[in-house]
Amino acid sequence: MSAGRGFQALGGETVYDGRLVQVRIERFRHADGEEVSREIVRHQGAVGILAHDAEQLWLVRQPREAVDEPELLEIPAGRLDVPGEQPLAAAQRELAEEVGLGARQWDPILTYYTGAGFTDERVHLFLATDLFPSSADSGENERIEILRWPLQRLGEAIDQCRDAKTLIALMWLGRRLNA
Amino acid sequence: MSAGRGFQALGGETVYDGRLVQVRIERFRHADGEEVSREIVRHQGAVGILAHDAEQLWLVRQPREAVDEPELLEIPAGRLDVPGEQPLAAAQRELAEEVGLGARQWDPILTYYTGAGFTDERVHLFLATDLFPSSADSGENERIEILRWPLQRLGEAIDQCRDAKTLIALMWLGRRLNA
Repeated sequence: MSAGRGFQALGGETVYDGRLVQVRIERFRHADGEEVSREIVRHQGAVGILAHDAEQLWLVRQPREAVDEPELLEIPAGRLDVPGEQPLAAAQRELAEEVGLGARQWDPILTYYTGAGFTDERVHLFLATDLFPSSADSGENERIEILRWPLQRLGEAIDQCRDAKTLIALMWLGRRLNA
Repeated sequence: MSAGRGFQALGGETVYDGRLVQVRIERFRHADGEEVSREIVRHQGAVGILAHDAEQLWLVRQPREAVDEPELLEIPAGRLDVPGEQPLAAAQRELAEEVGLGARQWDPILTYYTGAGFTDERVHLFLATDLFPSSADSGENERIEILRWPLQRLGEAIDQCRDAKTLIALMWLGRRLNA
């Protein structure tokens, strides 16, 4: 880190405390002495799972009310909404619940910030391979359509996709398969 | 769209009205009759600019208080915070203000949803080429370090990057250069 761009948190207050998010007004002092105030959406974070075998990858389509899209194409994902649960455990739970799969091999892909200008949300992406059927499907996601997407058509999935975590995961896979 | 995953907005209320975001509790009726309530962070949207010539691309490092990162590596970007301004015009303004560049060629890359589970934010990514120096630098971003990053080291930038819009833009460029 460069001292010139460092900053120190001075504290703040919660101005909204909701179900998924908290909004805080936080103050910071920059290395040059200037104090700034930021509106920050606190979010518990999420996981996304790129599950594939030699022929296909598992995608889902689900209604996303927040963006008025009934058919958004996504990788399986979920919020870190179980207290104390680590990202890998959350990813394993979500893959079982959303698509009824387990995996013998789990590898972290990367962790990214969703929108660093306004929210602290981090998304942890995992690669799940050596897959097997799991019966942990909770039945709570009945509006989710599960798609077995041919790996050979990965480029088409990327072209259709408008969801950040899915774009990142699929383009990461494209780089890996071409490497 | 499939009728089975369609939904109808039933209205809602604003529970927080801030500087950057608004939080709404909205109700929806799904095609199967179930009514659900969603907490949605409304955001005006943003633009990101992938600016490059034959040898280099322009990246920035800036402090991001929301995620406690003084040195996040990003493409130039900004919020759609000027009323009535279209995404392309915002991208042109931001490229001039943040890195002092204009471009004779602008092409849309794609538009994605930041985090479709909780926010309606959309980010519009543009490719800016045929670059020229611009004097529109507003001086308002004095903590931004401008990096001229060799295109040959694109893979290193991707590996270092933890910012969603930048990961998407750089991996998109990687696909294009390898195509």
